[in-house]
Amino acid sequence: MSLELLTLNNPVFKSFTFWAGVLVIKMLAMSLLTAIQRFKTKTFANPEDLMSPKLKVKFDDPNVERVRRAHRNDLENILPFFAIGLLYTLTNPSAFLAINLFRAVGISRIVHTLVYAVVVVPQPTRALSFFVALIATAYMAVQVIAAAAF
Amino acid sequence: MSLELLTLNNPVFKSFTFWAGVLVIKMLAMSLLTAIQRFKTKTFANPEDLMSPKLKVKFDDPNVERVRRAHRNDLENILPFFAIGLLYTLTNPSAFLAINLFRAVGISRIVHTLVYAVVVVPQPTRALSFFVALIATAYMAVQVIAAAAF
Amino acid sequence: MSLELLTLNNPVFKSFTFWAGVLVIKMLAMSLLTAIQRFKTKTFANPEDLMSPKLKVKFDDPNVERVRRAHRNDLENILPFFAIGLLYTLTNPSAFLAINLFRAVGISRIVHTLVYAVVVVPQPTRALSFFVALIATAYMAVQVIAAAAF
Repeated sequence: MSLELLTLNNPVFKSFTFWAGVLVIKMLAMSLLTAIQRFKTKTFANPEDLMSPKLKVKFDDPNVERVRRAHRNDLENILPFFAIGLLYTLTNPSAFLAINLFRAVGISRIVHTLVYAVVVVPQPTRALSFFVALIATAYMAVQVIAAAAF
Repeated sequence: MSLELLTLNNPVFKSFTFWAGVLVIKMLAMSLLTAIQRFKTKTFANPEDLMSPKLKVKFDDPNVERVRRAHRNDLENILPFFAIGLLYTLTNPSAFLAINLFRAVGISRIVHTLVYAVVVVPQPTRALSFFVALIATAYMAVQVIAAAAF
Repeated sequence: MSLELLTLNNPVFKSFTFWAGVLVIKMLAMSLLTAIQRFKTKTFANPEDLMSPKLKVKFDDPNVERVRRAHRNDLENILPFFAIGLLYTLTNPSAFLAINLFRAVGISRIVHTLVYAVVVVPQPTRALSFFVALIATAYMAVQVIAAAAF
């Protein structure tokens, strides 16, 4: 029984796997987005990265820093989701609820990136997308604690 | 046999799941702690976050930066623990040792946050809590490498 | 069948476990490398860390910041690999391909650290090691998405 939980026959695991894959691609894309901004604004953090002897290391370009803040926000929120989503799957939750929680995290984190680092949108769009993913992740963590504690 | 390792019938997995859940909640709380400090000190990193046209973006408030350093330290230490704790569980370790290692990581990381970002306590309290978790995580990693290499 | 995937009898899981353990040790070593640079250059970020009343908090030492950038790059690239490597293992991939992908990530991330934070080497060494790991991780993520989507 429990063994079936980590196979693609389990719709909860299948959904978790799909969204984890999508969010890994999204996170890796942040590195490329940072690189694009670095070349556009000629903002390089290491002497060995400078393309021309006329350039100097630079740390405070607002476009580069914006992408880096969005990327760090991913580290803070998506990476804990990877751990807790897998453990939540292993608690054998209701498929309907679990799949919609994974969707909520996946979609809201993509929206978060778009409105933070691609096309800046006035608040509270970013705050809302941030809190949808945070609340869904926290809910899963509470369920996991409850399953393990009793 | 191996299949039983990832069920709550396995006390090692049960303990890992509990502490992983607790530490995910702890990490998510860092975002709220950062937000509280940002509003208290009116330190916002993005123009679209400014609450009033009189405010300017600000990056160097010591209270905000302290919480952010504590949060980053979590990323550096708790997230690798999530990966290695699961793999260590799959090596079927002694339950007594494994459960106490997970407890050591969980409690010392909570202490680390409290003395770093909530009530600042003189060193070496933070250094000690940091090293307890680091050594426990490194020990699990060495056991995992040994199990996989031979 | 699926249950066997997460045992050391599965050469793919065995290889993933080995490299995950090695990369956790490598990541934890970054904290020690940072500490060494902090003491060498007397660069401490918190008032309670200052060893002498003559010292002041300091944030911009280039040697400390270099190690911190290398460490952050690990968070951005190695931590997503831990999640996707496990899910990729659960899709039951070709052992030959999977083991070489894990090796590629493991070795290229060690090279990345060496040429970034230990002995600085001119580009494109660091860029190449970065992209080898990124492309291998992205490939696994695409395979995981494909397995889950169809």
